[in-house]
Amino acid sequence: MPRPDTLPAWQQLFAHREVVGAGRTPSPHRTPGEPGWLRVSAGPLQADLSRHRIDVRGLELLCELAEQAGVQTRVQRMLRGDIVNPSEGRAALHSALRAPGGSADRPPLLLDGRDLRADIDAGIAAQARIAGEVRHGIWRLASGAPVRRIVNLGIGGSDLGPALALDALATQADGPACVCVSDLDPRALAAALAQCDPASTLFIICSKTFGTLETLANAAHARDWLRGAGLPETQLHRHFIAVTAAPERAAAWGVPTEQCLAFGEWVGGRYSLWSAVSLVLQIACGPQVLHSLHRGAHLIDMHFADAEPTTNLPLLMGLLGVWYRNVLGAQTQAVLPYAWPLRQLPAYLQQLEMESLGKRVDLDGQPVAWDTGGVIFGAAGSHAQHAFMQLLHQGTLLLPADIITFDESAALEPALNANALAQAQVLHTGGHVDAAPGAHGNLPGGQPVSLISSARLDAESLGALLACYEHKVFTQACVWHINPFDQWGVELGKQVARRLAG
Amino acid sequence: MPRPDTLPAWQQLFAHREVVGAGRTPSPHRTPGEPGWLRVSAGPLQADLSRHRIDVRGLELLCELAEQAGVQTRVQRMLRGDIVNPSEGRAALHSALRAPGGSADRPPLLLDGRDLRADIDAGIAAQARIAGEVRHGIWRLASGAPVRRIVNLGIGGSDLGPALALDALATQADGPACVCVSDLDPRALAAALAQCDPASTLFIICSKTFGTLETLANAAHARDWLRGAGLPETQLHRHFIAVTAAPERAAAWGVPTEQCLAFGEWVGGRYSLWSAVSLVLQIACGPQVLHSLHRGAHLIDMHFADAEPTTNLPLLMGLLGVWYRNVLGAQTQAVLPYAWPLRQLPAYLQQLEMESLGKRVDLDGQPVAWDTGGVIFGAAGSHAQHAFMQLLHQGTLLLPADIITFDESAALEPALNANALAQAQVLHTGGHVDAAPGAHGNLPGGQPVSLISSARLDAESLGALLACYEHKVFTQACVWHINPFDQWGVELGKQVARRLAG
Repeated sequence: MPRPDTLPAWQQLFAHREVVGAGRTPSPHRTPGEPGWLRVSAGPLQADLSRHRIDVRGLELLCELAEQAGVQTRVQRMLRGDIVNPSEGRAALHSALRAPGGSADRPPLLLDGRDLRADIDAGIAAQARIAGEVRHGIWRLASGAPVRRIVNLGIGGSDLGPALALDALATQADGPACVCVSDLDPRALAAALAQCDPASTLFIICSKTFGTLETLANAAHARDWLRGAGLPETQLHRHFIAVTAAPERAAAWGVPTEQCLAFGEWVGGRYSLWSAVSLVLQIACGPQVLHSLHRGAHLIDMHFADAEPTTNLPLLMGLLGVWYRNVLGAQTQAVLPYAWPLRQLPAYLQQLEMESLGKRVDLDGQPVAWDTGGVIFGAAGSHAQHAFMQLLHQGTLLLPADIITFDESAALEPALNANALAQAQVLHTGGHVDAAPGAHGNLPGGQPVSLISSARLDAESLGALLACYEHKVFTQACVWHINPFDQWGVELGKQVARRLAG
Repeated sequence: MPRPDTLPAWQQLFAHREVVGAGRTPSPHRTPGEPGWLRVSAGPLQADLSRHRIDVRGLELLCELAEQAGVQTRVQRMLRGDIVNPSEGRAALHSALRAPGGSADRPPLLLDGRDLRADIDAGIAAQARIAGEVRHGIWRLASGAPVRRIVNLGIGGSDLGPALALDALATQADGPACVCVSDLDPRALAAALAQCDPASTLFIICSKTFGTLETLANAAHARDWLRGAGLPETQLHRHFIAVTAAPERAAAWGVPTEQCLAFGEWVGGRYSLWSAVSLVLQIACGPQVLHSLHRGAHLIDMHFADAEPTTNLPLLMGLLGVWYRNVLGAQTQAVLPYAWPLRQLPAYLQQLEMESLGKRVDLDGQPVAWDTGGVIFGAAGSHAQHAFMQLLHQGTLLLPADIITFDESAALEPALNANALAQAQVLHTGGHVDAAPGAHGNLPGGQPVSLISSARLDAESLGALLACYEHKVFTQACVWHINPFDQWGVELGKQVARRLAG
C-alpha cells in the first residue's frame, strides 16, 4: 500500500483547493450537483452531505484517492481477519462480533488458520447466560440477595462505549440500575457507591489486560467497601464479574473463571463495545437491544464493504475528513447530536478518532510527511448553541460539523430539529443579524456540515452510527497509510507515572 | 487601541518563530531560563509554565506585545466600568460582583455616572436571604412542605457555571439536593424529575432575558408537572424563583417580584456565575462557600490588575495563547484537570473562550486579518489518558495542554498526581516505548504544557481558576483587538429556527 503523497489524486486535490477556496471564505460551490447530490442512505441512517465545500470534480478526485490508496482492498483484508494491526501483530475483527450467527453473509474469520466463529458464538452465549441470570434474579450475591445495582468498572474503551449506550438507550432499560465508573480519582467511585447498597451491588471489572491501574484501583476500593459492610469473605467473589482478554489474571485477583467473560486480543479497546464489554448494557436492556445494536452495525459493515464510493457513507465521511484535514487545514471537527441521550457521543468519538488517528509514523515505520488525525469535540446541539457555536458562526476557523437528528424528536419537542436544521443552514449559507451594528452581524457561512439522521434513536441506529464512524476512521487511516489499531503513545506516561509514584 | 498587525512586537514574534521551531518538531528550548523561570504564583494558584516552546527573548517579545496592545490600560477600563462591550453598548463588570463589600480595594463602579456598589450589595443581600430561607426550611412550597430538591433551569452561562461549581464543591454541600437541566430535549428534564417529588421540589429559572427558548420550554414542562401532581394552582408560584435581568418578564410568566433576583445588563451570560445565577450553589453549599468563591476570583482580579507582566499568570496564559494560535498555528487547546469533581471544567471553558473569542470583526468593525479564538476541549485527566492523549503524544498536531492538579489529591490516591506529572513530562521531553517496534515507539515531545496547581480543590481555588481563565481570554481579546463580550453569531440560528418551526 502506498504513501498518500505518491498518489496522483493527492496532488490533484491540493491543486483543486484553489477552485473551492481555502480557509474560512464563503464557498462559491453551494449547490454544485443536481438535486439529491450527496444525499446518501446507509442502513437506518440518512445523510445529507450537500453542505460541504466540495464540488463534483473534488468528489471525483476523493473517490480516485480512495481507489489509489486501495481502501476497498484493505477493508476486505480487515474483514477477513488479516493482520491489519502490524505493530501489535493482530487482526481487527470487531466487525465479526456483530455479524449474525450462522448467517451466510458473515465474513470468514480465519486467525492462525482457524475459523473463530465458534469461539465468538460461544462467547455471545456465555454473555447471554450471565446477563439473563443477573436480570432475572437467579444470580445471587454473597448474602443471597439478587442484584439491584451494577457498577461497571473500566476506563477508555471499557467505559466509553457502555456509558454512551446506557445513556442513549436508557428508555429501554428494564433491568437493574447500571452506572459506569472510570476515573482513578476515588471520588468518582465514592459518588456512585453512595447510591448503592453493598448487599445488592454487583461490579463488572472490564479490563482487556486485567492490569489497568485505574480499573484495578477501583476494583480494590469496591472490594474494601463490600468487606466494610460485613459481607462474608468466602462469598465476596459473587459480587464481581470480569470481562477481559486475560482471564488467568482475573482469577488470580479473585474472580472465579466461571464468572469471567473473555474477549480476544483481536478486539481493540476502543472497539470493545462489540465484545463482552457490552455485558452491562445487556443486563440493563436485555438481549433484544444488544441484538439490534449489532444488527445496526452489521448493516453498516455490509454497506461499507459493498456500496459504490459515491454512495458509501463511511467512505465519504472519511474522504471529506481527509479533504478538510490535509487540503484545507482544519485541525478540528465538531459532533453535535440533537438528542440529549447522545450527549456522550462526542466523548466516545474523541477516543475512536484521536486514539486511532493520532499517529506520526506510517505503516512502513517511516515518519509521516502529511497531517494525520485532528481533534474531535462536541456536545448535545441544544447545549452547544449556547456554549461554543458562536465560534463556528463568526470565528476565523474552518470547522466542519456533524449534526445528528432523529425524526421522532419532532413529537417530543418540535423546536429541537428546527434548531438543528437552522444551524446547518446558517453555518452553510451565513446571513446577517439585523440587530447587530454593522459588520458585527455578518455570518459568512461556508462552514461544512454533514446532516445525519435516523427515524428513531434506538439500538439499531446507535449501532449503525458507531460503525459508520469506525469505518470513517478506517478510511482516513487507509489514505494516511497509518495503523489505526495501535496506541503506543499512551504507554510511556504509564511507565513514568509508576516511577514517579515510587 | 491598535490592530495587532501594526505592532512591532507582532512582526518580531513571527520572525522569532524560526528560533523555536514551528510545527510539532522537538523544541530546542527546553530549559531556556534559570531555575524557577516561568514559575508563577497567583492567589491560591501555582503555575509551572517552564514546559513551553518559548525562550527568554520570545517571552520578552510577548510582554512587549501586551504593552503595545495596551492590555493594562484596557484592564483598568474594564474594571472601572467603561463601555468595553461597544457592540452592545455595555460595561463588563463581573469583577465588581466579587469584590468584597465595603472594602477599600473594591474598584470604582461608575455606570452612567452612578456608583453601582449599593445595587450590588443589595443584590447579594437579597440572594443570601432567599438562599437562607430555602436552606433552613423557612421557604414553604404550595403544599406547605419545605424544599428538598432543586432543579436549576438555564442554558449556556445560566447552566455551565452552576453545574460546574455544584460538582466541584459537592463534598461541601449540606443543603437540598440540587441538579441543573439545560437541554431543550425534554428527556433531560424528565430524567431529573424522575428523582424528584413535586411537593418538595423548587425550580430556579435562570435566563438573563427571560426569553430563552430552551429554559422557558423546560419551565413550562416543570409547571405542567407540578399541576399534574394536583398542587394548588394559586400556590404554584412558590415552586419558582427567577434569576434574570428582565424581572418584569418573569412576573408576566408568573414569578412574583419578591421571588425574583435581578442582575445587571453589564454581566455577560458566560460571566453570570458571579451574579445571582450562583443562587443554586449558595442553597446547596451555604454562604461561606460563595464568599470563598468570590474571594478566590477577587485575588486574581487584583493580581491581574497589578502584577508585573512576567509574573502575571492570566496575562502570560493569554500571551502564550496568542503565541500558539497566531505564530505557531495551533487551532486547539486541551484542558486536563486531574480531579474528577472538575470534569466539567473543559465544557465551562469551552463557552468562556469560544464564545468570547470566536470573532472575525475587530473593535473598529473591520474584518480581522489574523486568527482569533481556537477550540477548547478536554476531560478529567485520568479519563483523557485512556481516550485521546495518544494524539497529543504521537499525532502531528501542535496541541498545548493545561494540566491542573491539587496537592491534597496525593492523600486520596497518590497515583493521580504522579500520572499528571508524568503526562506533563512526557508531553514535553518525549521518549521511547521499548515494547513498540522501531519508530512506532517514538514520542517526539515538544508539546507545550502549563502545570497549574493548588493546595486544595475548594471554593477559593475554583474562583481563582475561573477568574484566571477569564482574564486569559480578556488578554487574547485585547491583543486581537476584538470584543470578547458580545455573541451576535448565535442570534441568526434562533431566528431561522423560529421560522422553520413555523
